[in-house]
Amino acid sequence: MLDAKISVAVIKRLPKYYRYLELIGDKGIIRVSSQELSKITGLTASQIRQDLNHFGAFGQQGYGYNVEELKIELEKIMGVDKPYNVVIIGFGNIGSALLNYSGFKKKGFKVVGIFDNSPEIIGNKANDVVIKDVSELEEVVTREKVDIAILAIPAIPAQEITDKLVACGIKGIWNFAPIDLKLPRNVVLENVHLDGSLLTLTYYMNSLKDYPGVR
Amino acid sequence: MLDAKISVAVIKRLPKYYRYLELIGDKGIIRVSSQELSKITGLTASQIRQDLNHFGAFGQQGYGYNVEELKIELEKIMGVDKPYNVVIIGFGNIGSALLNYSGFKKKGFKVVGIFDNSPEIIGNKANDVVIKDVSELEEVVTREKVDIAILAIPAIPAQEITDKLVACGIKGIWNFAPIDLKLPRNVVLENVHLDGSLLTLTYYMNSLKDYPGVR
Repeated sequence: MLDAKISVAVIKRLPKYYRYLELIGDKGIIRVSSQELSKITGLTASQIRQDLNHFGAFGQQGYGYNVEELKIELEKIMGVDKPYNVVIIGFGNIGSALLNYSGFKKKGFKVVGIFDNSPEIIGNKANDVVIKDVSELEEVVTREKVDIAILAIPAIPAQEITDKLVACGIKGIWNFAPIDLKLPRNVVLENVHLDGSLLTLTYYMNSLKDYPGVR
Repeated sequence: MLDAKISVAVIKRLPKYYRYLELIGDKGIIRVSSQELSKITGLTASQIRQDLNHFGAFGQQGYGYNVEELKIELEKIMGVDKPYNVVIIGFGNIGSALLNYSGFKKKGFKVVGIFDNSPEIIGNKANDVVIKDVSELEEVVTREKVDIAILAIPAIPAQEITDKLVACGIKGIWNFAPIDLKLPRNVVLENVHLDGSLLTLTYYMNSLKDYPGVR
């Protein structure tokens, strides 16, 4: 079972479980049943058990899940039990917001480089990181063994910069640029397309008949 | 055909078409065939024709699509041919980044209120909008007939604030809070779960065998 290919739908629910475990863990709750997780997540208890069973046997009949242990297991599964070196490319509104993203601080994400093409901010420091010209990108990515690049730039230069990152051995790209990037299959891409999200919102606001409800 | 319920997958592709039409329109290209759109979007020409046919007959055999006309039609379909009053709730990193989001300026989104709970910034102005205490939210949402609320706050207060917004007649919520909100079916929700996106990225970086490739 551990060798089967796991569906995107299952993967996408893991951060959701993790989020709820964090919330109830912060309240001092030590154990939780799949029924209780069902109540707060809105998913069925059997769905939750099935999802988690893909990765091993975590719960105990009659006891449920130990919140802290399951959190740690999920961290391992989601790969956030280890550090990542990150660069932010494009230091406008979104790029600078992400520098202070709390999700980085809580886990082992370290921003080791910030790049922009605006002479007005190149040379400045943000959180002790010097903002560099994008021409220095490849040197830094290679030297610092950067794992993840965040693209917070317009559509036009995104593919060209991506190609350079791939050539430097980048492993993952978190893309906020409004464009579909072409990548080799061994470089993982996650898109946050704000434009698509906002236009989907307005579409459904005007076509409620099509709205599938909260997903 | 125009009355059939249109699937989420189709809706999610509309902003993508729009994005490419903007890109090629900016280059001065006047008309485009579904074959050419296929080449730049990576979708098949018949998929593109099928998607667009849900909303009417836009292209012409042998001519293709007029870029500007199709853009205008898509704007109507996606509901961005009209203005929206927007409030931003939570003026931290993400909230302040969104205030200057270029997608608002290009379309008719007007930020008419900004709310936070930090005494240090309440009373300040951002882009000529006074940052108000979140206790004034309902008054502003009602008075300004706010259509869309952007939630850029932590998980904990998000549901409570959402309930207030719903009571004031909000029509859409663009949610950046890491929580699944409960809403009546006539209020449209779009989530941008950064945590889920980042953890999906690290999951696949560590489990390439599961990675479905660029989606």
